Amino acid sequence: MNKTVLLAHGSGGRLSHELIEKVLAPAIANPVLDKMDDSAVFEVEGKLAFTTDSYVVNPLFFPGGDIGRLAVCGTINDLSMMGARPLYLSLSLIIEEGLALDDLKKVMLSIREAADEAGVRIATGDTKVVNKGSADKLFINTSGVGAVPADIEISGANARPGDKVILSGPIGNHGIAVMSSREGLQFSSSVQSDCAPLNSMVARMLEVSRTIRCLRDPTRGGLATTLNELALQSNVGIVINEDTIPVDDGVRGACEMLGFDPLYVANEGKLIAIVDPDESGIIVDAIKKDKYGQDAAVIGEVTGDHRTRVAMKTTIGATRIVDMLTGELLPRIC
Amino acid sequence: MNKTVLLAHGSGGRLSHELIEKVLAPAIANPVLDKMDDSAVFEVEGKLAFTTDSYVVNPLFFPGGDIGRLAVCGTINDLSMMGARPLYLSLSLIIEEGLALDDLKKVMLSIREAADEAGVRIATGDTKVVNKGSADKLFINTSGVGAVPADIEISGANARPGDKVILSGPIGNHGIAVMSSREGLQFSSSVQSDCAPLNSMVARMLEVSRTIRCLRDPTRGGLATTLNELALQSNVGIVINEDTIPVDDGVRGACEMLGFDPLYVANEGKLIAIVDPDESGIIVDAIKKDKYGQDAAVIGEVTGDHRTRVAMKTTIGATRIVDMLTGELLPRIC
Repeated sequence: MNKTVLLAHGSGGRLSHELIEKVLAPAIANPVLDKMDDSAVFEVEGKLAFTTDSYVVNPLFFPGGDIGRLAVCGTINDLSMMGARPLYLSLSLIIEEGLALDDLKKVMLSIREAADEAGVRIATGDTKVVNKGSADKLFINTSGVGAVPADIEISGANARPGDKVILSGPIGNHGIAVMSSREGLQFSSSVQSDCAPLNSMVARMLEVSRTIRCLRDPTRGGLATTLNELALQSNVGIVINEDTIPVDDGVRGACEMLGFDPLYVANEGKLIAIVDPDESGIIVDAIKKDKYGQDAAVIGEVTGDHRTRVAMKTTIGATRIVDMLTGELLPRIC
Repeated sequence: MNKTVLLAHGSGGRLSHELIEKVLAPAIANPVLDKMDDSAVFEVEGKLAFTTDSYVVNPLFFPGGDIGRLAVCGTINDLSMMGARPLYLSLSLIIEEGLALDDLKKVMLSIREAADEAGVRIATGDTKVVNKGSADKLFINTSGVGAVPADIEISGANARPGDKVILSGPIGNHGIAVMSSREGLQFSSSVQSDCAPLNSMVARMLEVSRTIRCLRDPTRGGLATTLNELALQSNVGIVINEDTIPVDDGVRGACEMLGFDPLYVANEGKLIAIVDPDESGIIVDAIKKDKYGQDAAVIGEVTGDHRTRVAMKTTIGATRIVDMLTGELLPRIC
């Protein structure tokens, strides 16, 4: 077999079948995928969550992860943020002609490992190959379906004044990790992406509370943009305390050097939960029991004041409005 | 608003929200999509079909369709080929910086029209923007879910010797239409893509028969490759009659000039059905009642001889083996 992906690997003909049989399918084989019909078919019942994301991260491999792990975790997390138990993912590859087969194999292995960790299966897939120069190495789309328990009603529109805002851990690691590997910057070589599946964390949270109002993962646009989305969607104000927002030293250093605000830097393994104030303690404790949530904390609360806006009490005691990201901080972060 | 897509439209921040609110969401608004949470949530029950496809067709607009119509129809058809009633699609865009907003709007309109025609909703979406030169204008992923009736068991593995092979209409139109618009070839300016949703055709077929063995749409790799897939998957032989395979004059002329074999040219609105011989008549009649199936015909049969191979009786009376596509005929046809 050739050592790089050829245009004919995307023809739908003999070489496509070879690529699927030798490189793609073996990594992610399971009884649903292996039928190789035009769609996967499986039994479901009740409320279904359905989501999609395309991943165009550059470079493909970065400290703490790669595009494969990212593509699985990102879609698992979008399902988890509805309280859904992720069931099946689809996997669609757009490959630039000339991609090294070894790189493709590494990505497929990451996909398998992340899917195994999260307990989901790849049910269906697709592969396209485009001419050299028509894409940048590899783009991945994953879509996913998950089962939402009948009594769960989580939405970005459910926050109420008085609710507490919980953050599951330190912010900005994914963005800085990708940025440092892209630019070859040395200052932050110790920063790893936080890219992780959050479905087990959410399962722990749902064990102790069935009335969580909002869950969202602060990816592109960072914590600040996601909080703004929630404030808009629920028509409430949100106040956060700068003191309580964890930022790792490596991320802080990199941000200071580059003039970035960690509030706007992307995360791929963190969640924001907006919860009833009476339950915030047990929910923080539940998150802390998860391997990806040991630094969880209440970082603020929901208010009936300054509706649709987010304010932050700074470490020096001032209060400032924290707006949505404007412009583009770091293209192709996910 | 700017007249082209900017990198910041993919930031996840303010401009992303603007693009979604002003350009993307209005075209495809519906109550499920409009909640704008991390996943869509809806009720389902029973057997679910789930499929995905990324579309990288070049050019974006071609006679008879565009990438938007293609992306909706292709995924609807993959669901339909399992006997599923398509319910919801996801829509994920990878946009090259600099794409004209007018082109994006035209594509979104096509998406809406095709979704309306097929009676499906866009439930969830995602937008990424990559730097100029990192993608070619626009790639679209659609994934889809559909409901499979409990008594339907359609699979490429179900063909049996004695079964009849039905083709729903003339072949090669999509491939030749895209090719002619790409290369600026004039000879075939009259050839239109056959890009169409086949769910209503399949519904008509299921009204008259609940025991259809295999359905598949002969897209990339054409009729020949798809028949080879079915022969392999079912471990049977297939014999087709060249005389009975409809090819439009424009397609035939273009193929002769370019040295293409229409058997290998892509279709986006045709299906192959393998059915019990006793039911082939009523199924052909049902297909003919559909607007996209007026030229349906039995084109061959399944045999216990030459298992995994496809043979064709030619118009001059010879029999030749018809292999899977090798190499790449037309890159980026879908």
